[in-house]
Amino acid sequence: MRLFVSLSYNGTPFCGWQLQPNAPSVQETLERALSITFGEKVAVVGAGRTDTGVNARNYIAHFDVQALPSERTDWIIHKINAILPREVVVNSIFRATGDAHARFDAVSRTYRYYVHTVKDPFAVHSLYFRFPLDIEKMNTAARCLLGRHDFSSFEKVGGANLTSFCTVSEAFWKETGPGHFVFTITADRFLRNMVRATVGTLLEIGGGKHSPEWIEEVLLASDRGAAGQSVAGEALFLEKVEYPYPLVEL
Amino acid sequence: MRLFVSLSYNGTPFCGWQLQPNAPSVQETLERALSITFGEKVAVVGAGRTDTGVNARNYIAHFDVQALPSERTDWIIHKINAILPREVVVNSIFRATGDAHARFDAVSRTYRYYVHTVKDPFAVHSLYFRFPLDIEKMNTAARCLLGRHDFSSFEKVGGANLTSFCTVSEAFWKETGPGHFVFTITADRFLRNMVRATVGTLLEIGGGKHSPEWIEEVLLASDRGAAGQSVAGEALFLEKVEYPYPLVEL
Repeated sequence: MRLFVSLSYNGTPFCGWQLQPNAPSVQETLERALSITFGEKVAVVGAGRTDTGVNARNYIAHFDVQALPSERTDWIIHKINAILPREVVVNSIFRATGDAHARFDAVSRTYRYYVHTVKDPFAVHSLYFRFPLDIEKMNTAARCLLGRHDFSSFEKVGGANLTSFCTVSEAFWKETGPGHFVFTITADRFLRNMVRATVGTLLEIGGGKHSPEWIEEVLLASDRGAAGQSVAGEALFLEKVEYPYPLVEL
Repeated sequence: MRLFVSLSYNGTPFCGWQLQPNAPSVQETLERALSITFGEKVAVVGAGRTDTGVNARNYIAHFDVQALPSERTDWIIHKINAILPREVVVNSIFRATGDAHARFDAVSRTYRYYVHTVKDPFAVHSLYFRFPLDIEKMNTAARCLLGRHDFSSFEKVGGANLTSFCTVSEAFWKETGPGHFVFTITADRFLRNMVRATVGTLLEIGGGKHSPEWIEEVLLASDRGAAGQSVAGEALFLEKVEYPYPLVEL
């Protein structure tokens, strides 16, 4: 029986989603909690990798089990959460058909990136940028990202993707409070390091180093060296993963 | 010339306010930034100690300087903040008379303690308490703390205070969101570990282990063993320090 699970995690103590031989991953942590709860060895397949330190709010993974425990679903979730460390929480479990796939079926992913320009000792999952930001300019540039483009200028060198074309359906900045900003981006797929390189590039525009039009040049260059520096992972959140079918709670 | 400074700090990387020989303290960090900015050796006197990991939002300290820099105050603050690490921020600088004292003159201090009962991977400065809390019961018990009492049941053994009497003017819980609680307490003075032992005691009442009336017994016992366990420092905030005179910005 195939199930989907929605989880949130604070990436600080993890080497990212993906299982690594000598570092704690979210995948391994979740597999352990599910295996104990379901009483059988469980392997999970995630919607995608997240890098070291990157956070997630509604990450989706799938896994197969022989049978469901006899308990009510809220008790199953309670049990899993009691085993998981405080940095990981399972929000819901969904029924899926046998061929449903958390990664291959996902039609879009949404990321958020947090930035603050006024010093805030408690904004842990936010990048402190020491210069004022022109949100209008950043949004002008962000609009150039909408649609289908070759994003290889924003891809970490060494990425093994067959194509670096992505379709961006949403890309905008919002000021959530004085000196506190959040960038939201939705696309069908993301290349390695793409959000962090995009944010770094938009911050160079917002900080006045480049004009909004510069982003067109960067896109056309198809060269990682053309874009801005990649920003820290701790301020990045995978916010949402969407599927072409509704997820039905267990 | 004597000045007062208001600062906020995330206690995570510090051994507390007080200077320690082999560990990073807020006091030392602030003294270094002030010394560089004012171009002379600056020593600061804080409103009180905070323990390892404890945070502060409007901590007050005083210090003396020979002369003010010629820059505008907002530039002086900007300079200090550029030197301070991201976990410490100076909010304001105030003029004070030569005999004003950040610790001796303080007439009240307010602390807040954060608790959540639903798992939240991002609530870093909040205690995760795994059982539902009865806020009515906790508030009934908290009301018993109001007024002047001997708080030695809530004092860390080995405290060197002459008296363990404190006058509490405010002590209440508020639910800020589903499963998220904050406790506020104001008193003329606090004994070592007093807030954390008080919160631990109130959580035992809120969790159903004891009745609200139990707190009267605990107070009368004058014995640290009578109260509940002390809770973690990372969820504690020194919120406000009050003086009998207004603080006038530089």
